[in-house]
Amino acid sequence: MSSQPAPASAPLKVGVVGGTGYTGVELLRLLVNHPHAELDVITSRGEAGVAVADLFPSLRGRTDLVFSEPDVKRLAACDVVFFATPHNVAMRMMPELMDAGVRVVDLSADFRLRDHELWSEWYGEPHACPELLADAVYGLPEVNRAAIRDARLVACAGCYPTSIQLGYLPLLEKGWIKPDQLIANAASGASGGGKGAKVPMLLAEAGESYKAYGASGHRHLPEIEQGLADIAGGPVSATFVPHLIPMIRGIHATLYGQLTESAPPLEDIQAAFEARYADEPFVDVMPPGSHPETRFVKGANICRLALHQPRGENVIVVLSVIDNLVKGASGQAVQAMNIMFGLDEGAGLAVVPLAP
Amino acid sequence: MSSQPAPASAPLKVGVVGGTGYTGVELLRLLVNHPHAELDVITSRGEAGVAVADLFPSLRGRTDLVFSEPDVKRLAACDVVFFATPHNVAMRMMPELMDAGVRVVDLSADFRLRDHELWSEWYGEPHACPELLADAVYGLPEVNRAAIRDARLVACAGCYPTSIQLGYLPLLEKGWIKPDQLIANAASGASGGGKGAKVPMLLAEAGESYKAYGASGHRHLPEIEQGLADIAGGPVSATFVPHLIPMIRGIHATLYGQLTESAPPLEDIQAAFEARYADEPFVDVMPPGSHPETRFVKGANICRLALHQPRGENVIVVLSVIDNLVKGASGQAVQAMNIMFGLDEGAGLAVVPLAP
Amino acid sequence: MSSQPAPASAPLKVGVVGGTGYTGVELLRLLVNHPHAELDVITSRGEAGVAVADLFPSLRGRTDLVFSEPDVKRLAACDVVFFATPHNVAMRMMPELMDAGVRVVDLSADFRLRDHELWSEWYGEPHACPELLADAVYGLPEVNRAAIRDARLVACAGCYPTSIQLGYLPLLEKGWIKPDQLIANAASGASGGGKGAKVPMLLAEAGESYKAYGASGHRHLPEIEQGLADIAGGPVSATFVPHLIPMIRGIHATLYGQLTESAPPLEDIQAAFEARYADEPFVDVMPPGSHPETRFVKGANICRLALHQPRGENVIVVLSVIDNLVKGASGQAVQAMNIMFGLDEGAGLAVVPLAP
Amino acid sequence: MSSQPAPASAPLKVGVVGGTGYTGVELLRLLVNHPHAELDVITSRGEAGVAVADLFPSLRGRTDLVFSEPDVKRLAACDVVFFATPHNVAMRMMPELMDAGVRVVDLSADFRLRDHELWSEWYGEPHACPELLADAVYGLPEVNRAAIRDARLVACAGCYPTSIQLGYLPLLEKGWIKPDQLIANAASGASGGGKGAKVPMLLAEAGESYKAYGASGHRHLPEIEQGLADIAGGPVSATFVPHLIPMIRGIHATLYGQLTESAPPLEDIQAAFEARYADEPFVDVMPPGSHPETRFVKGANICRLALHQPRGENVIVVLSVIDNLVKGASGQAVQAMNIMFGLDEGAGLAVVPLAP
Repeated sequence: MSSQPAPASAPLKVGVVGGTGYTGVELLRLLVNHPHAELDVITSRGEAGVAVADLFPSLRGRTDLVFSEPDVKRLAACDVVFFATPHNVAMRMMPELMDAGVRVVDLSADFRLRDHELWSEWYGEPHACPELLADAVYGLPEVNRAAIRDARLVACAGCYPTSIQLGYLPLLEKGWIKPDQLIANAASGASGGGKGAKVPMLLAEAGESYKAYGASGHRHLPEIEQGLADIAGGPVSATFVPHLIPMIRGIHATLYGQLTESAPPLEDIQAAFEARYADEPFVDVMPPGSHPETRFVKGANICRLALHQPRGENVIVVLSVIDNLVKGASGQAVQAMNIMFGLDEGAGLAVVPLAP
Repeated sequence: MSSQPAPASAPLKVGVVGGTGYTGVELLRLLVNHPHAELDVITSRGEAGVAVADLFPSLRGRTDLVFSEPDVKRLAACDVVFFATPHNVAMRMMPELMDAGVRVVDLSADFRLRDHELWSEWYGEPHACPELLADAVYGLPEVNRAAIRDARLVACAGCYPTSIQLGYLPLLEKGWIKPDQLIANAASGASGGGKGAKVPMLLAEAGESYKAYGASGHRHLPEIEQGLADIAGGPVSATFVPHLIPMIRGIHATLYGQLTESAPPLEDIQAAFEARYADEPFVDVMPPGSHPETRFVKGANICRLALHQPRGENVIVVLSVIDNLVKGASGQAVQAMNIMFGLDEGAGLAVVPLAP
Repeated sequence: MSSQPAPASAPLKVGVVGGTGYTGVELLRLLVNHPHAELDVITSRGEAGVAVADLFPSLRGRTDLVFSEPDVKRLAACDVVFFATPHNVAMRMMPELMDAGVRVVDLSADFRLRDHELWSEWYGEPHACPELLADAVYGLPEVNRAAIRDARLVACAGCYPTSIQLGYLPLLEKGWIKPDQLIANAASGASGGGKGAKVPMLLAEAGESYKAYGASGHRHLPEIEQGLADIAGGPVSATFVPHLIPMIRGIHATLYGQLTESAPPLEDIQAAFEARYADEPFVDVMPPGSHPETRFVKGANICRLALHQPRGENVIVVLSVIDNLVKGASGQAVQAMNIMFGLDEGAGLAVVPLAP
Repeated sequence: MSSQPAPASAPLKVGVVGGTGYTGVELLRLLVNHPHAELDVITSRGEAGVAVADLFPSLRGRTDLVFSEPDVKRLAACDVVFFATPHNVAMRMMPELMDAGVRVVDLSADFRLRDHELWSEWYGEPHACPELLADAVYGLPEVNRAAIRDARLVACAGCYPTSIQLGYLPLLEKGWIKPDQLIANAASGASGGGKGAKVPMLLAEAGESYKAYGASGHRHLPEIEQGLADIAGGPVSATFVPHLIPMIRGIHATLYGQLTESAPPLEDIQAAFEARYADEPFVDVMPPGSHPETRFVKGANICRLALHQPRGENVIVVLSVIDNLVKGASGQAVQAMNIMFGLDEGAGLAVVPLAP
């Protein structure tokens, strides 16, 4: 399948499955201003019949869409369908959609792991369509742009995995850090936990506090290791500890690597990062000595990176920030759509970070 | 002076004086995506020579501008100059700029009050150019659109005053509330306090706490009363108590009015609000029973309103929310510029509120 | 029934019904350090068998208690039983406990209104034991200390009602404000919404935002009006609009009153407030011009007040802050217990506000 | 010098130098309820003559103290003097106080490093009294209790260093982790930044954002390495990256260690932690699988720890939380005072963490 540029006169018809969560409303925020896409259908079992703008008053005046029951026929009439569902949902509808020839961008984890047994281990049930896993393209444009262009099913990279892979990428490509001693200490705002009503995510519980979670093992680890291994061209082993920040949006990853003997001085590593990402519209290598803050990317589809080498010794520290709902989810999904349909990769993604 | 539509081929040349504060960076956020405006010069005495994107990393990759010393000649070459300075600054440069024929949008309070003695009383020094006050048009488009179109100096409405005037406006125009018994209880996020380093605005001081301030008298009161009197066509008297909310952006006004005998039932008042604002692109009257939340307007140039009449008795409550930095400052300033130059009033203002 | 001082050698045996919510854990925080009380039993249907310190790790090392099924016999063996349950629970167990002769402090709303029909109207079902309402003493010590001393059932004042009544009290007692034109604008932190898992109380929903709720009518209004009428010695009419602050603890009430002709100058009103509360251990009248902040009372059993008279005109503004979980709930309950049992009223309540 | 139990009839006379910052007000919070200590003098150059309760309204009604100019004579009349000053202050007054025979607890960094040249390197000036460094006892009771008992000058452990040392301690004592590959990823609330008016600490800057700082090198690193080396009995090398959390209080350290061949299974490591801290009143080893949250220690003098071994591999993760102002500063200082004067080590430190 080759990509087809959408003529200006015919915007892409877009469907969204499961638009009531945070990645769903974020997709809408981006798509209502997209110059070449038009939201055609948005589904929700629970909210069918409800106007989108009633559930999300932030969208009042920006869309007349009404949530509808999921209906494969209606979705099949779209040029592209986004899944903004919880895990374990997209895989049930995927075979039918693939048969109908619609192209899909899945924001959930259903198609991120190539190994369906590993998937089952972490997501608690057998995969519903392991035969489609081979067709799924892992949606991290900085690694997979060409494959995304021709994909019929893009499995968008997760939020933590995006921040971590983009931070380690040049180091692993060059062989400058030991791939079996990676330590990824990361932290996310509460929107990463989704819109489900859970006591630990209440403001009175998660506010004014900070904690690690999943320290013994977290679902994102196999995705991270699969992605890093692809980049490194060999096995990697990472320790990954996520944390919850008392705020709404943003991921910050603090990545530790043991430099190999082949690693050059820091200024050369800095230069290599800058060169690797020079043509990437959505990765920003900050000047030496910088400390990226999550607010520098709030609401925007960008990953900002900075490098440190404490005391010039053998540990390198990469600081990486994204907005978990944009470059970590919906923005990345729109970026993938743009690539798939031969649009300007930045179409609809010109939003400037909100500061302060 | 008549407004001149800017041809697409020649974007407006824009200057910004004092771009290092929160209204300054917010102006930049909006202007870098404006289809018909181009930032030409941005001044700051303290940061002259510093790249804007170094001070505001959120703008990295979006602007190459460098702060420069204020220079009337360079500013005079612009089509429009914004003042995003603290109070008491714009008035010193204004005569020269007016002489040079440049059109100005002032976000500070220097030209909001017609009475220079009242101004002096609240702002602590004599006004530097009282003779220009008569030329200044009060920048609240929903009241003054026609005058703004032809203005050479627009004094943008303040943040609290915008939220309060838009909330009371239809009631006062209709004579449905007693103009001498207004109670405006309002609250603002911390960005309203500016970027100055002040102990009470530290996160460890202003976080996780809530307080009133200026309860015995606040600078915005004379502006509020002047504006409401213009709307009512007669004297008004308001009690205004502002509060500080432990968050960054947003103003919420809870407006109390004593209904007059001529006031119709609530549903008719609701209808009158909807009619009054039907053609206003940036005012949203929410359905009966609504409670607008400041997050419904975060980052966007809109005021959302809702009406309540507790127990059907003689007090009406209007709830009004804006983003203090957008409809309360920089967005309103861009809206004014659009009006002044005959552009689409919404140009550059399509930003959707950030949710969550 | 007369109060019996507890001899130092025999601490009060305390039971708590429904200790899994925020007022429950707050009671525990205060009681584990109480010099004359000993927690004997704490019940929870949902958590029976779970160690209290497992549910609330903040209490690790401070209590060995385990939640148990509610059991009237075990509760009846206590000197005093606190109800920290949601509304509509205490009234079902109360008759049996009263029969058993145990004294009760109810933190819920079940026994606050004397008029059971009014109660039913707001709480959605018939009252389970209207015959006990007459025995219930409204638990606001600053108004009802003597009655509390001898009460067998104390219905603790609610959080908003406490902050509002203490603010208006001297003005209404003196007849200095018009009782039919009260406007109480109040705001609470999110812990006031309880520990139930509700989407609007998620950090990602309630954080960084501010809203009014219940603007057309809120359950606390009848309690407020009943209490203020008792104070005023005649009917009152209040408009009450509560708001949600993006923080955990604290209530701030901004109270507006129309001064009557008998009202003296502000300095005399200030003096009258100071005199009225001179002997009250838990009410603090701040100096003229003050703006109490909710953090000034965080974690402590105190209400701080300040007075303003904008422009010396006919509106008086009282600012009133409490910690909703302490003076607005559990601290007030402990204060009531101390009074009931002839203990030092401040026993167990010496906690200093947490600052910053 | 031997410790002298204070008879109940004669409370310790306490002086505080520099009581206007956050560790100062926190000391006051704890000391006003201390059963065996009495605040006698509190100094501040900037606030001399101001009532403490005017600067800190949270202390209204709890202290009548007035800030006074620093005066060695008055301080010398105290049994113990606390320094709650910024760095580089205590060392200037120390010789005179030592000569006067008063015992001192210094919360600043002035006497934490034994090597005055290393100190100069990080604190930017020569040490004012290097000859006293040998007399200073490092104030981490879990390591140095006996020495603290007899110390005349205690240099309280810093906030980050406390959380990190207590987390690594049993592992290093046992030789179960490689001392030259420590990675300490830590994060602190904004009160750790002090009460100075600095733009980056404004709510509108530090709120709703997260960042690393000092990633290339931070002042606390030499203290951390000195302390860990003492514990390990040999050289250690640590990478330490601190982060700023958008909240007020709390430190969370995520500590990574490479297990040595001598390390036993996780359950035995857990048991060893429990045994090592069994008699420590202010260290809590949580059950296996726990994730301590900073709110579990808010306002209280305790460090809570938990252990994880991801996938049973060779990396161990220790999670460690403290309140930076209590166990990380003022609480630890009071604990040291209690030890120095033979008091119950927990006197004045019974405060239960504030939850929620």
